[in-house]
Formats: sequence, C-alpha cells, structure tokens
Amino acid sequence: MKEMENGQIHLELAEVKPLVVDSLKRAGCNGENADALSECIFQAERHGAHSHGLFRMPGYLASLRSGKVNGNAGPRLSNSKPAVLSVDGDGGYAPLAHQRLAKPLAELAKQQGIAMAALTNTFHFAALWQEVEMLANEGVVALACTAFKPALPPAGGTKPLYGTNPVAFAWPREGAEPCVFDQASAVMARGEVMIAAREGHQLPAGAGIDAQGNPTTDPNEVLKGALLPFGGYKGASIAMMVELLAASLIGEQLSFEAAEQDNNDGGPPRGGEFILAIDPANGLASAEGLFGKILDQEGARLPSDGRRAKREKIVREGIQIPADLYEKIVA
Amino acid sequence: MKEMENGQIHLELAEVKPLVVDSLKRAGCNGENADALSECIFQAERHGAHSHGLFRMPGYLASLRSGKVNGNAGPRLSNSKPAVLSVDGDGGYAPLAHQRLAKPLAELAKQQGIAMAALTNTFHFAALWQEVEMLANEGVVALACTAFKPALPPAGGTKPLYGTNPVAFAWPREGAEPCVFDQASAVMARGEVMIAAREGHQLPAGAGIDAQGNPTTDPNEVLKGALLPFGGYKGASIAMMVELLAASLIGEQLSFEAAEQDNNDGGPPRGGEFILAIDPANGLASAEGLFGKILDQEGARLPSDGRRAKREKIVREGIQIPADLYEKIVA
Repeated sequence: MKEMENGQIHLELAEVKPLVVDSLKRAGCNGENADALSECIFQAERHGAHSHGLFRMPGYLASLRSGKVNGNAGPRLSNSKPAVLSVDGDGGYAPLAHQRLAKPLAELAKQQGIAMAALTNTFHFAALWQEVEMLANEGVVALACTAFKPALPPAGGTKPLYGTNPVAFAWPREGAEPCVFDQASAVMARGEVMIAAREGHQLPAGAGIDAQGNPTTDPNEVLKGALLPFGGYKGASIAMMVELLAASLIGEQLSFEAAEQDNNDGGPPRGGEFILAIDPANGLASAEGLFGKILDQEGARLPSDGRRAKREKIVREGIQIPADLYEKIVA
Repeated sequence: MKEMENGQIHLELAEVKPLVVDSLKRAGCNGENADALSECIFQAERHGAHSHGLFRMPGYLASLRSGKVNGNAGPRLSNSKPAVLSVDGDGGYAPLAHQRLAKPLAELAKQQGIAMAALTNTFHFAALWQEVEMLANEGVVALACTAFKPALPPAGGTKPLYGTNPVAFAWPREGAEPCVFDQASAVMARGEVMIAAREGHQLPAGAGIDAQGNPTTDPNEVLKGALLPFGGYKGASIAMMVELLAASLIGEQLSFEAAEQDNNDGGPPRGGEFILAIDPANGLASAEGLFGKILDQEGARLPSDGRRAKREKIVREGIQIPADLYEKIVA
C-alpha cells in the first residue's frame, strides 16, 4: 500500500486478497465465504476488470452489515431432475456457490451430454466470465446469465424493466485458456456507467436515455433514466430471454420483483443464475479451426484476449484505487 | 392465381401449399419431404415472412435438381447421451427432421429437465422461429441456432467468416401462443438484403461493408462485401457462439467450411443445427408477470406480436409474388 500524489492508493496485486478477506470477515463473513469472494475480486483486478473488483466492496460490505446477505452461507446442491443441479445459495454471495457447483455440474454435463444449474437465493455482484471460465477449465462448454434490477426498457418502451442482464459464454481449449465472452445486454454495464459518473466522464451516444426517455450522454441522467440494449430491439430480446431463464425458469425473482423487495443498502438484490454446461464431445479441433481463421484477420482477436493482455502489466505494476474507496474497505 | 397489372401474381393463401408440393415433387422430393417443406413455406407466407417463403423456392428446387439435397431423406434419431438426441438429417431439407424430433426432444427435456438435439447432415434454408415454436407448443422452452456461409466478419476484422447465424427462442404460454423471437446475428438477414437488391432498395446505414471494408448502403455491394453484426462486437460474439454450437459442438461444418464444400447451386450449404429444450417447471406464471409488465408500457410489444399481427390480413387478402418467381416455381 502506498499513497500516491494524485489522491490514489497504489496496491501490489498480492495485497488485494488479504485486504478483502480481512474487510469481509470484519463485516460478518466466515472464512469460506470471504475466501471465495476475495478470489473473485482478486481475479477481476488481475484482469483489469476494475468495475467488478474493489469498486464493488462498499456494496458487498453494506449488504453484509445490513443483514441482507448471509456471510455464513453454505450453498446446498441437489438433483431435481437427472440433468438439473439445483443450488440453494443460502442467501449468500454467489462465488462460494460457484466454487461448489463447478465440478459437479461439469461431471453431470459429461455424463448426460448437457446439464444446467439453477442457482437461487443468491446475491450476484460480480462478472460472469469467472464462473463460465471455471467450468471451461473443467472441460465443458458453459453459458451463464443473471438478472438484477430494472435498467433496460423492453423493445418499444422507455421505462427500465430488464436488468443489464449479462450473458457469458466459455469454450474450453486444449493447451490454451478458454475462449470466453461476458457481455451485458446493455450497450454499457451499469458498473461502467457508475464509474463514468464517479470520474465525471460522458457516455458514448446511444448508451442511455434520461428519466423522460430522451437520449443523453450524462451518466448521472442515465442512472436516473434507463440504459439502452445493444443493437436495439435484438439486445432487448436477449435481455428478455435472460429474465425468463435466470428468474422465471429457475424460480427466482424477475428484476422488477427484485427491486421491489430490495432494501437498497447499496449491495445487489437477491436473485438467481441460469448456468448451462455442455460436453464438447469431439468439437475442440473444429473450434481451433475457427479460432485460427479469426486470428488470421488483421485487427481481429478472440473475445477474451483484451482482458488477458492486461494481466502481465497489472501483475508487474499493481493497481490504483481512489483513497476514499480504500478508506471504505479498511474502515 | 391471378395475374396483376403490376407484373405480380396474386395467390390465395390456400394455393401456396399445393403449388409448392407439386413443384417440389417434380424436382425429386417424396411426399413426406414435400409436405414438411411446403408447410414451412406456407407458415412463412402466412406470417408475412416473405424472405423465407416462396422467395426461397428457386434455391430449394436448384439443390434438389443438382442432387446436392436428398429429396427422399429419412431423418434418423438416436440417443448419443442421456440428454442428447442426435438427429441425422440424411442429407435432406431440415423441416422433416424438425417434425420428427419435436415431440421426442420435448419429452426428453421434460424427463431430464434439459436436453438438446444435435441435427447434422441437413440443409437449413428457413426461419428458425418455426421449430422453436413447435417445441414451445409441446410445452418446453426452446432455443435454436444455425450457421450458414460466411457473411459477417469477426470483431475487429473486415472479411466474412461467420454466417448471419440466427438465434431463435420460444417460451410456452398457457392460453396464448408462445413468446418467440428469431433474430440474425447480422443487423439484417441475408434474405432481406437479397430482397432489397432485387427490389432496388438501399439498406439502412450500419448494415454492411463493401469488399474493401468500407461502409455502404448498396445491397449489391454488401452481398459482395460483408454484413455487419448487430450491436458491434457483442453481436459478433453471438455469431461466434453460434458457429461453435451449431458446427463444432455437434460435429458439422463451420460456415467457412460449408462454403468451401458447397456447389453454389443457389440453395443452402450442408450444415447443422443446435436445438436446446428445457422443462419450464413452475415458471409459466412468473413469465406472465413479465409479459404483463412489457405490455403495460406504451409502444412496447412482445417480439412475436408484429409477425402475428400480419396473419389476419394475409389470410383475408392473400399474397403477391413477382411473375418471374412464379414462373420459376411452376416451370
């Protein structure tokens, strides 16, 4: 830890986990939950995904302190149907549930050909690439999605109804890290808009509308109005599908229901996650043929390459966070 | 059938199937294949989806006449894993395979909780909403996707690699038709660009690039260059996922491989289809809550409402097709 002249705090990457574990334990997490969540935040920071890293700690802490989230959660797995793994998150943060379900879900997918996990009664405040990558590292194709609180209007409407509703996908590779994408159904993730608001940046045109339904590039106005789906009505279709899969299908709250129930303590609302896992059978060689053709094109890259390219520099140079954020974490 | 003064042929909707069945049989289809394909074309015309209706007949006929497609195909089903239905299309058009797999796949999904069909060795030249709607009518949630021939560049690139790669999704409803969307990963489907070229319309900005990688609204230039994915790199991610699921995973040709193998007779290349089916469990009531909230918003509608709104008028007034297209069908 080093205070910088620019009002930032510099941290070595190795300092992130101990800092987070200590802070979470003081807010009521047991060791297992604190370890799983700190690993998740560490991986976000390590990959330069700062909007899902330490930036989220005040929210994580607030929901532990308000008692909304169970810091001693023990996620429980059961087979409700032969190819369905039902996971009760026990009211805790999602990362411990992900650690517990990854291997059993991958095994089930290999045995059945395809399987899904229905994760309910959980609080998801992280990036989804981590759990799909975990599954791909177990040798299966994975897709995951979650709802949240209303942020996006349905096609043709102007009032928030769907969450930013990310969809993440991972394909396993032999001798290489999985090919992974994780993208909000919004043009921008809410976390990115929050960072733009905090840092005083304008948003790109088309990212959102204000409370009256008019286009705006002011992140504060967008946070009061609505984000817009990527690709117009097609992104809205995907956001609708995420509500149906990650809430209706698995028996959890839709985004608008989650907002009605939430205590607005700054952390995430209770929700669910739909996680699909598929045995890639003999498909890995074919996929390498596709990846090769992508990389043959000048300027093209695999979706996960940008994120991973940041790692070496971050491991070498560490990270910087605002001093007031640091104070909230250690307070 | 009635010749119009504008060079168009007017058809009553009831005339479509007999016209198509007769034409397909003369080109080498047996009764079962001709019936399945004519039902598919009839449903497209009935819903105003003209780009996937009679407009496709010259292509269907060409590939039967060239011998590329088996007009006597007998699709075969087998269980390769407990939750996977492998369907060998026997080198025929996809609609007969869809008819044969719909009930067994829905049954398997209800029993296992989730199941997939891997349809290979088939020729898919139709809109995917038909097969997902068929599955939803059997009471399961369905998602389907197919690759084709290169039309879209990967993120960051300018040369076609992915097909237009549609994804279709259907959610079953009690007492109402399923909620369905079917959208190309391209801003516009190739069929729509072909119609614009035929009718001399310009495309909206952002729909495609020419052979040199420059933006253009000329449909003929886009057909020589590349279509663009919806929502930029996020649409490209989805198109990539479709290649991996509908080709690599199930053991069929990627779009670039299909183009290398195809005889370019005007019909579709050989390919595969990934079809997911999930038991909605107790989720239907929750979904109705979401649909209600969508329809509460002024201007908003469910994805399938636009298509269905056209039916009544079409049933009453019939359809019109260009005289030269009619000639090709009856020739």
